[in-house]
Amino acid sequence: MKVVVIGGVAGGAGVCARLRRNKEDLQIVMIEKGDYISYANCGLPYYIGNVIVDQNELLLQTPEGFGKRFNIDVRVKNEVTSVNLDKKEVVVLNHNSGEIYVESYDVLVMSPGAKPIVPGMKGIDKPHVHTLRTVPDTLNIKEYINREKPVNAVVVGGGFIGIEMGENLRHLGINVSIIEAADHVMGTVDSDMSHEIHNHIREKGANLYLNSKVVEIKDKSVLLEDGREVDGDLVIMSIGVRPETEFLKDSAINLGARGEIIVDEFMQTSQADVYALGDAVSVKSFVSGKENIIPLAGPANKQGRIVADNIVSKKVKYNGTQGTAIAKVFDMTVASTGESERSLKQNGISYKKVITYSASNATYYPGAEFMTIKLLFAPDTGKVLGGQIVGYKGVDKRIDTIASSIRAGLNVYDVQELELAYAPPFSSAKDPVNMAAYVAGNILDGIMKPFYIEDIEDIPKEDIILDVRTEQENQEGRIEGSINIPLDELRDRISELHKSKKYYIYCRVGQRGYIAQRILEQKGFDTLNLSGGYKFYEQFLIDQGNK
Amino acid sequence: MKVVVIGGVAGGAGVCARLRRNKEDLQIVMIEKGDYISYANCGLPYYIGNVIVDQNELLLQTPEGFGKRFNIDVRVKNEVTSVNLDKKEVVVLNHNSGEIYVESYDVLVMSPGAKPIVPGMKGIDKPHVHTLRTVPDTLNIKEYINREKPVNAVVVGGGFIGIEMGENLRHLGINVSIIEAADHVMGTVDSDMSHEIHNHIREKGANLYLNSKVVEIKDKSVLLEDGREVDGDLVIMSIGVRPETEFLKDSAINLGARGEIIVDEFMQTSQADVYALGDAVSVKSFVSGKENIIPLAGPANKQGRIVADNIVSKKVKYNGTQGTAIAKVFDMTVASTGESERSLKQNGISYKKVITYSASNATYYPGAEFMTIKLLFAPDTGKVLGGQIVGYKGVDKRIDTIASSIRAGLNVYDVQELELAYAPPFSSAKDPVNMAAYVAGNILDGIMKPFYIEDIEDIPKEDIILDVRTEQENQEGRIEGSINIPLDELRDRISELHKSKKYYIYCRVGQRGYIAQRILEQKGFDTLNLSGGYKFYEQFLIDQGNK
Repeated sequence: MKVVVIGGVAGGAGVCARLRRNKEDLQIVMIEKGDYISYANCGLPYYIGNVIVDQNELLLQTPEGFGKRFNIDVRVKNEVTSVNLDKKEVVVLNHNSGEIYVESYDVLVMSPGAKPIVPGMKGIDKPHVHTLRTVPDTLNIKEYINREKPVNAVVVGGGFIGIEMGENLRHLGINVSIIEAADHVMGTVDSDMSHEIHNHIREKGANLYLNSKVVEIKDKSVLLEDGREVDGDLVIMSIGVRPETEFLKDSAINLGARGEIIVDEFMQTSQADVYALGDAVSVKSFVSGKENIIPLAGPANKQGRIVADNIVSKKVKYNGTQGTAIAKVFDMTVASTGESERSLKQNGISYKKVITYSASNATYYPGAEFMTIKLLFAPDTGKVLGGQIVGYKGVDKRIDTIASSIRAGLNVYDVQELELAYAPPFSSAKDPVNMAAYVAGNILDGIMKPFYIEDIEDIPKEDIILDVRTEQENQEGRIEGSINIPLDELRDRISELHKSKKYYIYCRVGQRGYIAQRILEQKGFDTLNLSGGYKFYEQFLIDQGNK
Repeated sequence: MKVVVIGGVAGGAGVCARLRRNKEDLQIVMIEKGDYISYANCGLPYYIGNVIVDQNELLLQTPEGFGKRFNIDVRVKNEVTSVNLDKKEVVVLNHNSGEIYVESYDVLVMSPGAKPIVPGMKGIDKPHVHTLRTVPDTLNIKEYINREKPVNAVVVGGGFIGIEMGENLRHLGINVSIIEAADHVMGTVDSDMSHEIHNHIREKGANLYLNSKVVEIKDKSVLLEDGREVDGDLVIMSIGVRPETEFLKDSAINLGARGEIIVDEFMQTSQADVYALGDAVSVKSFVSGKENIIPLAGPANKQGRIVADNIVSKKVKYNGTQGTAIAKVFDMTVASTGESERSLKQNGISYKKVITYSASNATYYPGAEFMTIKLLFAPDTGKVLGGQIVGYKGVDKRIDTIASSIRAGLNVYDVQELELAYAPPFSSAKDPVNMAAYVAGNILDGIMKPFYIEDIEDIPKEDIILDVRTEQENQEGRIEGSINIPLDELRDRISELHKSKKYYIYCRVGQRGYIAQRILEQKGFDTLNLSGGYKFYEQFLIDQGNK
């Protein structure tokens, strides 16, 4: 049996290695249009920023070494230009020789990946405009920086690559402006979680242009739709990627609206003996069940293994992607898994939510850092639907706990029970994820009644906003129009309150507010408690002030 | 209703706080025999080592502050000396006044904790012999060190507290000898995982005496059973704890053989309206179902919440403890969850196991550090039974993923699917936990046939030990008697092998060995591959050389 694999990066290389381990006597041909296989895509921005200094670090495997080890016919700089499904053949352009040839297959695996979207606009072809996807892209940008010594970089698009590029260009001492069409960067998290990210990016000296669209690229600047000009003698276009499937457009392979390859749960395309995986396919969201294109390395690697197994032996299902993602944003870590509040709304899935604020480890042990967690869960069963975390140390650990909980179908009561590892350098006796689940459980049980920062501007004038922090905390900043009764005085001063009013309680993070709520509710008051507390709201205020 | 709570640390304080949030109109009396409530037990060694410098950091709540906030009658230095279950009364000794009084209750909660085991031996009462459990213990040791300036410390017992004390005394520049009766320290991990820990402890300048028992404490040394003397002008006894339940010995409360309080799944004792929790109770192991005493802060905190809920309203079950534990061991992190191989054997539970070696994050990104993972799983269903990790950065994250998997009842195929967060600073596209599960799945599927370091000495002379690493790696150290054919030459040199022999294959960590095994098995050879590879075996050799 002869297997032809299109693409030699994460997905394709994974298929080949597992295929060979499965069967010594398969003929395997890997066709990769670029110069490199199995390279470190996710490391590319860090090589530009000199965080990774040795170029060889980016090349995980050489074509020769990989070919030798796994007995694979590796052909780099060879590009499949079309497929003939009836004849079971692909047409290949050898970029080394210019020759075009035909390669037959018994089974075809397509892992062609995706490529950056480059919008048509005036100036887009100027030499200082770059995209970042491949090793050559990276070397181009690096060489451009070394040669031209740009002073001002404009990064168009505030997604993962854009933000990572912004950070790395700052490392090099280049001024950075990030331009994002949406109201917040890092579209995998919701708007309410983005304020702290915006504030951190600005603190690190990068400029942020939100709700902004570039309409023209000039030699030393870009022009925004609203007429503003932003200095930039280096422009990185990172507004997204799209499946690189032009070679399939005349084939019978089912493609989606964005050119994505449609596969079934076994990663098989609409054609028997033709599989596809990686950034070019659409997969089911594990949580919502909706089809989606989720270009991430983790899923591509998992799919590679499944495709290889399905070709030779057992039928293994791919159960969908939950979009678990993480990024270093300067000193910060931003992570998410499952559905966002926005995607739940879009998909008409009902949910509840909670915002908590916890330390990475015991606060009495040196080095504890705080993180904000947003947990989304089903209003009936409490099943965890999504999680988002913004913070520093220990964010990566907690998103993995939430990701595992989602994959296992746990509800918030199950998550309360998770017995996570505790010693002072590593966590608290109630881990931040346990804490988020405790508060979520309290919401489901009706003993914590929340309101959210987006509700603040709609609080009716006749209701009372009650700050239960200390007098000093109140003086340092408060929600406009709030009164202050410190929690520890509340029982003694309860006669100052009126049952005819509704009380919108808040404290710093929500914990004292919850205790105050429990006291007042049991005395017959109607209350809500601010999820995330003043601390969370304050990030919104700071972000607003800078917009 | 009046609730009396015995004990004001993790368990007791947690019960009180949640009880009050549940019900404003309960009368709650907290009786704590020590001077402090809700203090940072787990931080005490670090205060001795000056890692935590401010003594106030250890005191999470003052009796006054806690009493005020939660409207609780907090009585420190008050000790319950007996209970009268018929009359629903406890007898209390007030250590401030010397007075003895009786306190009635409607509901009694007991969270008396545990105290260090102090074996009867000659010299045990000498002033330089200390235990560490409470804040006063800590202050005593600290004062003793400041006053007497000990040069040599002996730590008796190599469990969590012993190792943490060893590390902190080394911080102070004191010579440290750790004496452990078993064949390895950190009894929560298995012997095979302990070699790397031993080697690290010795590297950090501490002496280790394994399989050693102290029989007498002298003024400047301790005498071991085998006649050796170990210098020590400070001795820390940390051989374990036992439930502090002497006040119950004449009561009708059911106690176990070690004085532990027997509770049902609702944390209720053998008496109605009497609950118990924390280090003094025995709970079910979540995995094996066996009763056990697991003195850990995490479970105590979770139990506190459950007890408080069960007293006032809903009936919540405590589903057992899986013993998730973690410790910083000098620069190293040692963590475990679920059953160990030893406990599985003891409980007659069949299992399979795998040892893997993975980087904390993408190796091309700076700062990656390696960890060894041991995963134990059911031979039929693949259900995860336990996990142990020894390493540095990122160990805490991976043990939490395994702990969550165990709690959710996942099998190794489910764990393969966990979609964990990947970006180069945080992990690899296949997370170390995914990797361990992949190899575990390969073992279950019969495509990876493992042998283990403990099997090496029993390999029959007529069989072949085959090193598939490079020649250079082989020359730097090998399993005695092995032949060397580098993996990339194996297909060409297969004629050198004989099907009549059994091949024990190894490489550095097991991955190349696995590829070699797949090649040879498909050619009809009978092979096994060393789980964990030479790297794992090497730690054993180094440890052996130092014993």
